[in-house]
Amino acid sequence: MKMNNIKDDYQIVIIGCGRLGASIANTLSNKNRNVTIVDINKDSFGKLSPSFSGLLMEGDATDIKVLKKAEINKADVLIAVTDNDNINILIAQMMKSIFNIKEVIARLYDPEKECVYKESHIQTVFPALLSAGEVGRILDKEEDDEK
Amino acid sequence: MKMNNIKDDYQIVIIGCGRLGASIANTLSNKNRNVTIVDINKDSFGKLSPSFSGLLMEGDATDIKVLKKAEINKADVLIAVTDNDNINILIAQMMKSIFNIKEVIARLYDPEKECVYKESHIQTVFPALLSAGEVGRILDKEEDDEK
Repeated sequence: MKMNNIKDDYQIVIIGCGRLGASIANTLSNKNRNVTIVDINKDSFGKLSPSFSGLLMEGDATDIKVLKKAEINKADVLIAVTDNDNINILIAQMMKSIFNIKEVIARLYDPEKECVYKESHIQTVFPALLSAGEVGRILDKEEDDEK
Repeated sequence: MKMNNIKDDYQIVIIGCGRLGASIANTLSNKNRNVTIVDINKDSFGKLSPSFSGLLMEGDATDIKVLKKAEINKADVLIAVTDNDNINILIAQMMKSIFNIKEVIARLYDPEKECVYKESHIQTVFPALLSAGEVGRILDKEEDDEK
């Protein structure tokens, strides 16, 4: 995960401090980027590294008051990675259209939703498709090695 | 997911017919490969495509009798992708050591387990790491586009 190009002054809001959210937040914080991370359960922040220097916000991100407190209106990047596809979609679509955030990324578990987002301005990350691709690469590589 | 190189006569056993297991099984079946897929819940097989031509086996894959029925002893490839990391590890390690299966792949949700498997002969797939990498690529690409 390089993330070398993201601008110094970009405001990044991450919704969901699970494994993925925490991992992205730690990487961006290591690069001295401005990160706010929101989670409904404050125990989730335990996944952040001790050196994480961003802002933590405990609250339900489907509540617009919580998002405003996270200064979503000033965000350049919104990353919706709760463990609920519908919440990620809802937040991504609403915030993109209301605040015209430059870059909105949502993680979705259900690959059948891919077609819906192909033509939207939301970037989607599908772990199941990425994992299937990786299994394919491992199997193809194994066979190449035997040749 | 290419999987073009996997040999025609390879016996492939997939444990877990969730999104990932079903996706791999469908791809391999489309390429006329020999696939057996095992799941504890027969409703899971509903995720397979109607054209899936492999064998379905309902049963608990932590029960060696079920694995034997799936002819794990003849398998060239074992792919452990249940939704439980510990079960995937257990099956992968035991079957690799007992039957010396050529290629054993396990999906693991917890990226902290990565270091444990780096030096084993089990290939691991970490959806959280793949997803974090993908988010990084999206963010880096966005910045490149603006330059």
